[in-house]
Amino acid sequence: MTDSPLRPVRLDLSGERLLATYDVHGSTERTTSVLDQLVVEQTIEFPADLVPDDDIKRHIIGTVEQLDRLDNDRSRAVVSYAVELAGGQLPQLFNVLFGNISLVPGVRLVDVQLPATLLEAFPGPRHGVPGLRQRFLPDGGPLLATALKPMGTPVDDLAAMAYDLAAGGINLVKDDHSFGNQPFSTFRDRVPAIADAVRRANDDRSEPSSIYLPALNLRAEDLDAGVELAVEAGVGGLLLLPGLISHDRMRAITDSLPEDLVVMTHPSFLGQLVTDPTAGFAHGLLLGTFARLCGADVTVFPNHGGRFSFTPETCTEVASACLAELGDLATCWPAPGGGMSLERVGEMLRFYGEDVCLLIGGELYRGDILTRTRQMVETIQEVRT
Amino acid sequence: MTDSPLRPVRLDLSGERLLATYDVHGSTERTTSVLDQLVVEQTIEFPADLVPDDDIKRHIIGTVEQLDRLDNDRSRAVVSYAVELAGGQLPQLFNVLFGNISLVPGVRLVDVQLPATLLEAFPGPRHGVPGLRQRFLPDGGPLLATALKPMGTPVDDLAAMAYDLAAGGINLVKDDHSFGNQPFSTFRDRVPAIADAVRRANDDRSEPSSIYLPALNLRAEDLDAGVELAVEAGVGGLLLLPGLISHDRMRAITDSLPEDLVVMTHPSFLGQLVTDPTAGFAHGLLLGTFARLCGADVTVFPNHGGRFSFTPETCTEVASACLAELGDLATCWPAPGGGMSLERVGEMLRFYGEDVCLLIGGELYRGDILTRTRQMVETIQEVRT
Repeated sequence: MTDSPLRPVRLDLSGERLLATYDVHGSTERTTSVLDQLVVEQTIEFPADLVPDDDIKRHIIGTVEQLDRLDNDRSRAVVSYAVELAGGQLPQLFNVLFGNISLVPGVRLVDVQLPATLLEAFPGPRHGVPGLRQRFLPDGGPLLATALKPMGTPVDDLAAMAYDLAAGGINLVKDDHSFGNQPFSTFRDRVPAIADAVRRANDDRSEPSSIYLPALNLRAEDLDAGVELAVEAGVGGLLLLPGLISHDRMRAITDSLPEDLVVMTHPSFLGQLVTDPTAGFAHGLLLGTFARLCGADVTVFPNHGGRFSFTPETCTEVASACLAELGDLATCWPAPGGGMSLERVGEMLRFYGEDVCLLIGGELYRGDILTRTRQMVETIQEVRT
Repeated sequence: MTDSPLRPVRLDLSGERLLATYDVHGSTERTTSVLDQLVVEQTIEFPADLVPDDDIKRHIIGTVEQLDRLDNDRSRAVVSYAVELAGGQLPQLFNVLFGNISLVPGVRLVDVQLPATLLEAFPGPRHGVPGLRQRFLPDGGPLLATALKPMGTPVDDLAAMAYDLAAGGINLVKDDHSFGNQPFSTFRDRVPAIADAVRRANDDRSEPSSIYLPALNLRAEDLDAGVELAVEAGVGGLLLLPGLISHDRMRAITDSLPEDLVVMTHPSFLGQLVTDPTAGFAHGLLLGTFARLCGADVTVFPNHGGRFSFTPETCTEVASACLAELGDLATCWPAPGGGMSLERVGEMLRFYGEDVCLLIGGELYRGDILTRTRQMVETIQEVRT
């Protein structure tokens, strides 16, 4: 061993490990070389030959627990890390799972298993599937959502649309994710006006079946004030964008919200983390599991057959991750969006089952909004019976 | 036109546009189809046939200003957007540039031109190349940086290492980016102890030539308190991780720091945004331009020929983006890291010139740290003369 200035270190560790499963693309030789790098890169990022025979070498460096060759160009490796490496915090957990290795092509994180002691740091969805079903859908059926659009529309017009969408029976009326604080519709003007419109629609129907979720698409230093303004305005939830504000900020905001607010998340700016099948993250892990860790009650993703590239398989993967067991965390509504039409209702309910949030867009604007919304709700009722 | 419920909208816009250059991969037919989608997807995300002939259709939807076929599989498109779409805020700027289109494979953002009115929202680096050169390098030469490692090392040992590294002449002594708030080295214990060690080294040399930059790798709700603790402890700067805390949080933290603190940024968890050459962002844009928008004085990236996949071309691209004109924003030090050795000093200075921050790692631990550090500093002096 090279002469090292490091003293051997003794550490008081629990012995608990978290498990990360990576698909490594390339020859078996490359796989070996990448994994040799990965277990060091994600942990000590230091020449292993300079580490004495101590607890850092034995327990801090990652361990390849299992390695299988999946096909000619791909191996699957399960790597374990001491749970202490994450320090109970999401950013450092992400760092251990994929920080530096994100810079090495051909490595995709496909699964994560967290021990209970680490999962405890994540309360998860406060409502999830059971909570929102009880609140909005006593008679069963899918949850219905839509986005207020298009950007540039004045606040009064948005509020009028929101009234009609709520009156027609849409449960979650959210801002388009591009609504930030633009001069033509500032957050301060928009949020109270639309919250009020949705409240009036509920009052007029004598049914509290709709809520408004503004997009919290603001500067980092304005997010907390934005939450406060939204809560005071009486919104029913928030649309959070982890690709823009970070997953951990989403988790922190969710943890701080009044209990009755619903959290919806949108994949803007996250696409490049999933679209390359040889890198980034498995769709279900990022848009399902991680969304739940951050408290999403509803997670939006592009439906197959729409404007994006998601396949039926990736959509199933996301929906499964939303509904799978994950410690004590509640399940989360998968919300496939994009190109949803009256004609696709039956197909989508067969594909996803009833634990789905149908995110309906432009279709509701092809004619009078209230009429079109009622048609959509009726079609769903007919398909179900 | 389909019967639309939207009223025609008149908007009071400045006429200023921001320009985004995308490389679109695939046939010319696919390029046309992707661009038709992109100009709508990034803006109104709404069926264009339902928008009346109004200011939303004319000015909010993006415009393809130029389109060139680069090779058999790639076109380059310059798209303009009304500057108002960003609302003067980085998250929504990112959203307009790449939000939903990130979900479409084969689209890479390669350049961005922001009008002066939008650039004003970004003070940029407070020191940059000129500031740190004046402060640390009155006689010229590259800036020197290193990371304290490995994770798991007790605080006292880290402080002793930091003393030697500072005493040997390293300008920027930073935490390894994986140092968060782990039980074996909490932020609260670590930061004051190392800040004190570096201060003593400066005092003992009667030369304030070294600063300590702790990694601000904490939970979202703990970041502000972490900054406060670090400032009180007398650190000389911070290591910020936009891949984990978001670019906009990095910008907000930088804007709030005392003027003398130096900001260094690290690409952890950002790799998957650049490594696929057909998607994500050009290396220079993400690691150079965006780092400067967020106030980085020094930006770390993997050097070519090291443990990662960066080529000489990508490294040149990052360094060029660090030093290119960008409104009134200061330039930023490119800090190539990974596998830096005594033998590579000459090659690296020839490659990058003197406006480079050499990030030296394990090499300084091959023997007594103070001795090895002095050897490195001497080698650099010799190579320069």
